[in-house]
Amino acid sequence: MTRGLLIVISGASGTGKGTVCKKLLADLPEVAYSISATTRTPRPGEVDGREYYFLSVEEFKTWIAEEKFLEYANVYGNFYGTPLNKIEERLNRGEDILLEIDVQGALNVKEKCPDGIYIFLLPPSLDELKRRIEGRGTENPESLARRLKNAVAEIKIGLQYDYVVVNDTIDNATAQIKTILAAERLKVARNTDKFDFEGGF
Amino acid sequence: MTRGLLIVISGASGTGKGTVCKKLLADLPEVAYSISATTRTPRPGEVDGREYYFLSVEEFKTWIAEEKFLEYANVYGNFYGTPLNKIEERLNRGEDILLEIDVQGALNVKEKCPDGIYIFLLPPSLDELKRRIEGRGTENPESLARRLKNAVAEIKIGLQYDYVVVNDTIDNATAQIKTILAAERLKVARNTDKFDFEGGF
Repeated sequence: MTRGLLIVISGASGTGKGTVCKKLLADLPEVAYSISATTRTPRPGEVDGREYYFLSVEEFKTWIAEEKFLEYANVYGNFYGTPLNKIEERLNRGEDILLEIDVQGALNVKEKCPDGIYIFLLPPSLDELKRRIEGRGTENPESLARRLKNAVAEIKIGLQYDYVVVNDTIDNATAQIKTILAAERLKVARNTDKFDFEGGF
Repeated sequence: MTRGLLIVISGASGTGKGTVCKKLLADLPEVAYSISATTRTPRPGEVDGREYYFLSVEEFKTWIAEEKFLEYANVYGNFYGTPLNKIEERLNRGEDILLEIDVQGALNVKEKCPDGIYIFLLPPSLDELKRRIEGRGTENPESLARRLKNAVAEIKIGLQYDYVVVNDTIDNATAQIKTILAAERLKVARNTDKFDFEGGF
């Protein structure tokens, strides 16, 4: 059984990674979402167990103590984490798992799962990044300024990823990610079974 | 200036790498062929300086002494080699260079140029490999049997490459190689200039 692909997609706040990931999952039925846990307040329309497992801080700390997380991080005062055991089970069954996580979280995952595919999404420009962060409308001005400054700092961390995709349009970005996945499926390490030609003698 | 891609394509004898590389170069005008030197006899239609630099054994040994080769190998009694200096010049000018070389040669190159993209072509089956080797009609029976045995041994060495492509049809194989190149162009290491967002502040 060939192990599935662990696809890790990150991007600075406001880069649009959520939208890109949703489109990617809609287009690629063989890829399944990994659902994260968080202590932040649900946004309108978000459902527990679908977008996130919404936990209290107390519950989250219990999960940490029980080592249920592949990674977790505190971002702007909220915890985010990725349950490890379910992901490993699915990878070993040959399923491809998409992880959409924050920059800090992704580097923790990279240490533990170096065979994952680490893709960093960039905004097409600083101006567009500003527009997207402001467009969310869920933040006060101080928080907006802090998010923008943090976003620019997070972009530097992207230099530690494997691939970079500029999210100019959703269609371009998802097409490029599909190209990356198609190439990764051709990696020798994922196709060692194809090299046995001696059985024919 | 972003350094060009060094694309190294190998395959066991009879895998059809020559045909695949020709199609690839015809389809991708931005990729240029690296021409090898050899001491083997030209086949009908082959032209010195186009398919190969055809050298005498004496000339070849002089080039070795002058360290003109990125790699060279003795394959079935003939020398094959790749001139280094021209390739490096072109890569540094941002040109993409395609190297079609024998398995032994490729591993030498990989040591010297680890940033290259190493693609191994496989025949679709052992029977097809036999047909292709016999179809060349330029070998005596002993030589054919030796080539087939060597081909199967060479295929194992393919496990040390980065990517594997099954050459079932020329169109499929070239399409997969194009996918690999497109993904490689998205590698972070080749796009570090895209990460500078601080200039905007």
